[in-house]
Amino acid sequence: MQDIIKDLIQKNNSKIIMTVLDGLGGLPVNGRTELETARTPNLDALARTSACGLHTPVGCGITPGSGPGHLGIFGYNPYKYGIGRGILEALGLGLEIRKTDVCLRCNYSTVKDGVITDRRAGRIPTEYNHKITAMLQDAIKMIDGVEIIFVGGMEHRIAIVMRFPEALEPDAADIEDTDPQKEGKAPLAPKAKNGNAEKVAVVVAKLIEQTRQVLKDEEKANFLLMRGFSNMPHLPGFEEAYGLRALAVATYPMYRGLARLVGMDTPPLEGSVEDEIAFLKEKYGEYDFFFLHVKKVDSYGEDGNVSGKAERISEFDALLPRLLELNPDVLIITGDHSTPALMKAHSWHPVPVILKSPYVYGGLCSAFSERECLKGELGIFPAVNLMPLALANTLRLKKFGA
Amino acid sequence: MQDIIKDLIQKNNSKIIMTVLDGLGGLPVNGRTELETARTPNLDALARTSACGLHTPVGCGITPGSGPGHLGIFGYNPYKYGIGRGILEALGLGLEIRKTDVCLRCNYSTVKDGVITDRRAGRIPTEYNHKITAMLQDAIKMIDGVEIIFVGGMEHRIAIVMRFPEALEPDAADIEDTDPQKEGKAPLAPKAKNGNAEKVAVVVAKLIEQTRQVLKDEEKANFLLMRGFSNMPHLPGFEEAYGLRALAVATYPMYRGLARLVGMDTPPLEGSVEDEIAFLKEKYGEYDFFFLHVKKVDSYGEDGNVSGKAERISEFDALLPRLLELNPDVLIITGDHSTPALMKAHSWHPVPVILKSPYVYGGLCSAFSERECLKGELGIFPAVNLMPLALANTLRLKKFGA
Repeated sequence: MQDIIKDLIQKNNSKIIMTVLDGLGGLPVNGRTELETARTPNLDALARTSACGLHTPVGCGITPGSGPGHLGIFGYNPYKYGIGRGILEALGLGLEIRKTDVCLRCNYSTVKDGVITDRRAGRIPTEYNHKITAMLQDAIKMIDGVEIIFVGGMEHRIAIVMRFPEALEPDAADIEDTDPQKEGKAPLAPKAKNGNAEKVAVVVAKLIEQTRQVLKDEEKANFLLMRGFSNMPHLPGFEEAYGLRALAVATYPMYRGLARLVGMDTPPLEGSVEDEIAFLKEKYGEYDFFFLHVKKVDSYGEDGNVSGKAERISEFDALLPRLLELNPDVLIITGDHSTPALMKAHSWHPVPVILKSPYVYGGLCSAFSERECLKGELGIFPAVNLMPLALANTLRLKKFGA
Repeated sequence: MQDIIKDLIQKNNSKIIMTVLDGLGGLPVNGRTELETARTPNLDALARTSACGLHTPVGCGITPGSGPGHLGIFGYNPYKYGIGRGILEALGLGLEIRKTDVCLRCNYSTVKDGVITDRRAGRIPTEYNHKITAMLQDAIKMIDGVEIIFVGGMEHRIAIVMRFPEALEPDAADIEDTDPQKEGKAPLAPKAKNGNAEKVAVVVAKLIEQTRQVLKDEEKANFLLMRGFSNMPHLPGFEEAYGLRALAVATYPMYRGLARLVGMDTPPLEGSVEDEIAFLKEKYGEYDFFFLHVKKVDSYGEDGNVSGKAERISEFDALLPRLLELNPDVLIITGDHSTPALMKAHSWHPVPVILKSPYVYGGLCSAFSERECLKGELGIFPAVNLMPLALANTLRLKKFGA
């Protein structure tokens, strides 16, 4: 799709706001979904006059992670553009990833006599993790000209970024996990899967040895097991793909990180959804496209808290007039995937979509909900079609063919 | 899709029943389709609380044969996996096909002075066909170490299986038809289309000569014209593709044969739909997936018998509670294609689907019919998406990406 779009792009002064209520879609509990439970007078009114439908994030029956979920609504085929575990971990910890970087996630683990006795080092306390991670960073800053960045996570988790002096080949991070996934085995060697990965594997081997030396006197956390070696996917950015100057308005590092992968500006931001909207308004003159991310809807879904998730949706509904005041040419309200409180997890279900634009039928849905959106003019469509729809509705796509 | 699914499969103890009412979909006659005519209180109740929709068997406007129709709902792309005519003919006659086999279908025909005078040998009576077929089998059992199996069909039709001592290359059956499709021409030679097919073509040439010798004194049926040389498609089986132990419950040999191609267990079975359901219940503990095939719905459609087809649907409806008693995690009711009595033939129309699961919206359709299913949450979707949906709804698919 993006290949076709690229040749049709024309620029103008229109504005697009894409609001992602993370994990928006749900399932009925006592007959009503979270969206059907929430008080949403503003969203309902918008649904009545807008184009509505549901998008399938990745594919029929496929439950997306946050990475593929966002790539899809940003118009990138999630099958084509994989985001490695190491990259996501580093993004989630707030690291800025570059084309020169190989990222990996590690476990602090316990190794005795060359054999793993605890893959998670007894789930050491987070504070302790951060203390020994600082120790590692003090001792190890550079290996063979490669900068090494350690970032401690929760409990036994730690991310490492290896920053090379030059950009890497796309397959340079294809290195086998050193974690054998079982206690009682020896850690594996960091084996390169291809020629381009060999120089990386050499540095990894030295990294393992040096960290082992630093950690050797620790009782539990005396070894790092490594997984998810990955580098930055080579995605055409929003400017290149769509001719859009794009801003991410998100308070969670991972979502800013995902937005950065597709070339959005991602200034750090803290605060409530109200603060996010205020920030968007401040920056409204400077960009064409705004990705507004609302995290908490998903969090309550993951906790199985129907009323909590509904309440977050209601809160957003109350703030919606502030977005409408801006009168963007296209306003999209959707999610990156469903997180039914019933399932306490992401799910495969299609995600409701409102697309406000002057060029729609409207009048098909009486409210904003999964079941009402089924009656809408957009039908059930692949998530990657959302960006072409946004561009078309801002008259940013030329005619195809004569 | 199957490539992606394969990496996401996780096993659990859930059960899936896929009921195929063969040729289910129809068209209105006097305003009502066969489904709308049938008495279906149980199906209607199920539709009200389930996910409904319609599947497109092969593609928009494409009328499927039974082979592609079933492959699609089993999750196999019918464009990618072709089932040769010879294979289908042999399956329909109840033969068990192996990886070592080349199948073909033939016509008894009349050849005079080296020229075909009747391609169907005057449509000889079936009994006579079976008599001379037995004569062929008595005379020819083996050619160059290849076992030859003859099975008489209706009138002039006959299937042959050539059973080689070893497994064949995927393209080993690519041999040109010997039937020129016109009277007044000479039969063609069995020409191999590639190197792997040459050894097969050599045996075919001898087979033609030997059958000619046996039939030389027959007045009409004195020659075999051969078509549809084919061998077993290399399909990943249900266990490999989905991690499912699958049982086919079907009384017609062709459908058991199709199920066998995708690795289902296919014990022979005779009797009514009631008997089929009893058999399924008997085996319920031993499998994860059950393909329940109900043939007669299609047969009445082919005959143009609206009330007969509706009656078969009503009969199934009355038996539905026996399936529901099992409380499978996912119960699917659909067809392999539409067979509108109005058309007396298979058609391209999408086929109604009920998918019962705990993870659906429900409440969108008031009954089970083509027109009500259009209001359902599954929309109109490609048949190959049905298996991913079944797997997702039994929580057998892991999350895609992080």
